[in-house]
Amino acid sequence: MSESAGSAGPELLYFEDVQVGQRFHSGPYTVRAAEIRAFAAQFDPQPFHLDEQAARGSLFGGLVASGWHTAAITMRLSLEAGPRFAAGTVGLGADVTWQRPVRADDTLHVQVEVIDKVASESKPDRGRVVMRIETRNQRGEVAQVLIPRVWVPRRAAASA
Amino acid sequence: MSESAGSAGPELLYFEDVQVGQRFHSGPYTVRAAEIRAFAAQFDPQPFHLDEQAARGSLFGGLVASGWHTAAITMRLSLEAGPRFAAGTVGLGADVTWQRPVRADDTLHVQVEVIDKVASESKPDRGRVVMRIETRNQRGEVAQVLIPRVWVPRRAAASA
Repeated sequence: MSESAGSAGPELLYFEDVQVGQRFHSGPYTVRAAEIRAFAAQFDPQPFHLDEQAARGSLFGGLVASGWHTAAITMRLSLEAGPRFAAGTVGLGADVTWQRPVRADDTLHVQVEVIDKVASESKPDRGRVVMRIETRNQRGEVAQVLIPRVWVPRRAAASA
Repeated sequence: MSESAGSAGPELLYFEDVQVGQRFHSGPYTVRAAEIRAFAAQFDPQPFHLDEQAARGSLFGGLVASGWHTAAITMRLSLEAGPRFAAGTVGLGADVTWQRPVRADDTLHVQVEVIDKVASESKPDRGRVVMRIETRNQRGEVAQVLIPRVWVPRRAAASA
């Protein structure tokens, strides 16, 4: 965990509390081959996610995690890292880019940065917070960049 | 399954074969509460994904699937529906929007449409195919819109 890990503490953040530029870092998560295969069998049953032998002949040259598996792990690490929003982390949507494959025994961690916040013009009780979440491996290489848009309530509305 | 389900058959599609406007429909997939909780426990452990009682007091008013779970189910249904690309479905990235929650016992299906294809200018052996994948529930309501960008090899390169 880096210095800022858990800096949000148990305190819940409302829209007014969120600052563009805030950063949060997760602890590590090591992805095992069995987990890669199990996720793939359920959701993304392609040879390069399921079978080491078949994966060697693919464009990846070996077993790799489904991008959706990487995204799901990123969600887990982001929840642990923070920020902790008052209504939970309720995603409106996200843009995800897979830049490098995640391989068996890679150790991932995420860095979360708040990059924008937008008050709703039509609904005064809420706003949208945009983050940039980089998922890096043990060599510091970026495997995935995720830009989620999250629904966050305003404190004013909660106390009204 | 709709008429066009499996229309790609066993034939593998290269970049040249893909046509903008092609559509593919999946069969149904019913999401059970136990599966919603199991996915959430592993990847998105928030009360509204984990516990029916706690979820009733959340903004969702009941247990809902993680958006990442919906995305993963969409991947599964899309693979079954087609198109079947020559190198597999290798995602470069995607934009996802969650429009309505997925609740326990909802029956989902997806409609895939090819909306763009872009030849790589720097790498003549490949191109990018963009799809629009709508995930709808049993009432025809759109729960999620996914716009994936997929890496697809050119036939010319394969036969060279």
